[in-house]
Amino acid sequence: MGVPIVGVIGGGQLARMMIPAAVELGVEIRVLAEAEGSSARLAATQVGDYRDLDTVMAFAKDVDVVTFDHEHVPQAVLRALLDAEISVQPGPDALEFAQDKLRMRQRLSELGAPVPDWAAVSNPEELQQFISEHGGAAVLKTPRGGYDGHGVRIVRAGTDAGDWFENFEALLVEELVDFRRELAQVVARRPNGEIVAWPVVESVQRDGVCHEVFAPAPGVNSGNDRLAEVTTSIAETIAEELGVTGVLAVELFETTDQRVLVNELAMRPHNSGHWTIDGSRTSQFEQHLRAVLDLPLGDASPIDRHSVMVNILGGPQEEAITDRFAAVMARVPDAKLHTYGKSARPGRKVGHITVSGEDLDEVTYRARMAASYFEDSTE
Amino acid sequence: MGVPIVGVIGGGQLARMMIPAAVELGVEIRVLAEAEGSSARLAATQVGDYRDLDTVMAFAKDVDVVTFDHEHVPQAVLRALLDAEISVQPGPDALEFAQDKLRMRQRLSELGAPVPDWAAVSNPEELQQFISEHGGAAVLKTPRGGYDGHGVRIVRAGTDAGDWFENFEALLVEELVDFRRELAQVVARRPNGEIVAWPVVESVQRDGVCHEVFAPAPGVNSGNDRLAEVTTSIAETIAEELGVTGVLAVELFETTDQRVLVNELAMRPHNSGHWTIDGSRTSQFEQHLRAVLDLPLGDASPIDRHSVMVNILGGPQEEAITDRFAAVMARVPDAKLHTYGKSARPGRKVGHITVSGEDLDEVTYRARMAASYFEDSTE
Repeated sequence: MGVPIVGVIGGGQLARMMIPAAVELGVEIRVLAEAEGSSARLAATQVGDYRDLDTVMAFAKDVDVVTFDHEHVPQAVLRALLDAEISVQPGPDALEFAQDKLRMRQRLSELGAPVPDWAAVSNPEELQQFISEHGGAAVLKTPRGGYDGHGVRIVRAGTDAGDWFENFEALLVEELVDFRRELAQVVARRPNGEIVAWPVVESVQRDGVCHEVFAPAPGVNSGNDRLAEVTTSIAETIAEELGVTGVLAVELFETTDQRVLVNELAMRPHNSGHWTIDGSRTSQFEQHLRAVLDLPLGDASPIDRHSVMVNILGGPQEEAITDRFAAVMARVPDAKLHTYGKSARPGRKVGHITVSGEDLDEVTYRARMAASYFEDSTE
Repeated sequence: MGVPIVGVIGGGQLARMMIPAAVELGVEIRVLAEAEGSSARLAATQVGDYRDLDTVMAFAKDVDVVTFDHEHVPQAVLRALLDAEISVQPGPDALEFAQDKLRMRQRLSELGAPVPDWAAVSNPEELQQFISEHGGAAVLKTPRGGYDGHGVRIVRAGTDAGDWFENFEALLVEELVDFRRELAQVVARRPNGEIVAWPVVESVQRDGVCHEVFAPAPGVNSGNDRLAEVTTSIAETIAEELGVTGVLAVELFETTDQRVLVNELAMRPHNSGHWTIDGSRTSQFEQHLRAVLDLPLGDASPIDRHSVMVNILGGPQEEAITDRFAAVMARVPDAKLHTYGKSARPGRKVGHITVSGEDLDEVTYRARMAASYFEDSTE
C-alpha cells in the first residue's frame, strides 16, 4: 500500500497536535474541521458538519482510517462508515461508552472496575433519595454533551437539577468522592490488542478544567509502584473490555482512604497526556497515529524524572499570544511552548507549557512561571 | 503584532521539518515550493521558481520573515527583498559565503579561522602546481552549485578538472586533509547577536553524503572539552563575523595531528543537526524559527548522554517507505522514525532515524538496525 492516510474528524487542538507527529513519521493527515480557521487548519482538507453523514462519507472515502479529535460523532454516522467498510478507530461500540456516561458507569460496574457509588435518576425524588443516602451532597452529570466542567454540578437537593430532567431521560448521580488527588492513566491500544501505558500522572483542575499535570504522579517515582500497577491494570482492562483503539485516558480519583476510583473516560489523546510530547519517548499523538493504523506501539518511557505541564487558560485578550513569546523564552529557555492558534477567551485552553527535569520543585516552579507570562492582565 | 508568519523558500525536507516546530509553537509557516508534491507540501502556499523575482516577491510580501530550505536563491533576488524592506534571515551578505566556496575560504582565511591550505585556480597549470606542492593529490571544488558530494572531486593532475574550468572563472582547490574524523558544530544566532551552540557531533559520510551522526562526538562526553571549546569558538566567530542569522552548521575535519579545520558552511538547519529533534531540549528547527524571528533562543542541551542518527538513503524502490514501518517499530520501539514524503531513488535522503540513550554502543546498534529495515533489497 502507499503512504497511509489518517482522517481526523474535528479540527481542535488534539487534531492540531497530531499534525507534527504525522509530518515527522511521514504519514498523511487530513482533517474534517467544523469551521474555517480551526486549530488544525493546516491539515484541514474539508470543512463541514460531522453530524451529517454525506459530509463525513465524502471525507472518509479516501482515507485509510478515520479517527477523532472529539467523541461527538453520532453513532448512526459511525455505523454507516463501518457499513461502507471504512476503518473507524476507535469504533462505535467503544465510543458509545465515552459518549454516554450512564452507559459507561453501567459497563464499568459490570466489569468490576472501581467506581464511585452511582445511580441513574429520572426525577427530583430519586435524586433527593440518592443525596440523602450519600451524606447530603452528590455530583450530578448529564449523560451526554459534557466537557471541561460543563454538564457537571454538585447538588445538595433533588431540586438542584434545574432543567436537566427536562432534557434527558435519566441523569447520572454519583457520590461526592472524598479524594486526595486526581490521577489520569493514559494508555494506547491497537486493534491487534497490543497495549502500552504511560506513567500515571496527577492532574489538577481549576474551575473544572485541567490546569496542571505532574508526570509521573508525585510519589510514583520513588517506589510507590502499587499505585501505578493499579491504575495501569484498570486502564488496560477498560481498553480491552471496551475494545478501545487509539489513546484512552482514564481519569481517576485517589481517595483519602487509599482507593482508586474511575471518574471519566476519554477515547482520544487527552490533556493529561500533553506532557508526553516533550517528556516521553513516544508522544500520545504519535502513539495514537500508530495505534489507529494498527502499527506497533512506541516506547512510552518518560525521558526525564519529572515533567510538569501547565495549561494556558484564557490567554491575553488584548494581544496575540505570540506577543508574550519573547518574555517567556528569555526567562525559561527550556520551557516547551505550545500554542493552539485559537483566539483568546476567558478559561479557554489556548496552549500549554511543559518543563522537564530532575527536581520536581524546580520543574514545577519553572513551568508555572513560564505559564504566568500568558495570563491576561485584565482578568 | 499578530501571529508571526515565517516564509520558507524551498520545499525540501528542511522546510518540512520546520512545520512541526511551527505548529507546536503556534507560529504560521508558509512555503514557496519548487514543484507540486514537495516534501514540505503541507505548508506550501505557492509553487514557483525561487530565481524569479516576481514569484519570490509575491510570496514574501505577506510574511514577517523570509528564510530558506537551501542556499540557492540568487543574490539579486535577496537584495530586492531587502530593498522592499522585507526581513531576510540569513541576509544576502551572510548567504554569499554559503553560496560561493571561494569567497567563503577567502573570508575564513581573513578571519584567521583554521582552514585547509587552499587556492583559487583558473587553469590546469595552476591546478597542477597546487597538486605538486601538496603531495600529488588535492580536492577540487566548484565555487557554486555543489551539494552532497556533487561539485567535489579528488584530483591528481591538472587535467583532472574536466570541463569545470569552462564553466567557472576559478575553482577552489584544497589540500587533501589527513583527517581522523569529520565533525560538525551547529549553532544558532539571532539578529540581536545571541548565539546558542549544540554539542559538537561526529558525522560519517557515505559516498559524499551524510550517513551517520553521533551526538555528541564520541569522547566529548567524557571530558574532552577542549575539542568542544574549539569547535564552538570557531562556529561562534564565523556566525558573528559573517553576520549569520538562524542555524549555521560548520563542517570540520579533526586531523590526525589534532587540529580542527573548517571544511564547509551551511546557513540553515543541517543534516548533522537532525538528532536535535529527538535528542535536544530545542531542535534545530524550532531554534531556526526562533532565531529568524529574533526571539530568545531555546536550551540546546542534549536530553540523553548519546544520540545516534542514521540517514535512510535511497529507500525501498518497489514499495512505500511506510510499508517498512511495522517491522521497524516492532523491533525498535524507541527508534524515532522520520520520513520525508519523498519518492525513493538510490542514494537520496528520504528519511532518518534517531535513537538516544545512555550507552553509545547500544544506541548505535539500535539506530543502525532500525535504519537497515529501510534498505532497498534490490540495491
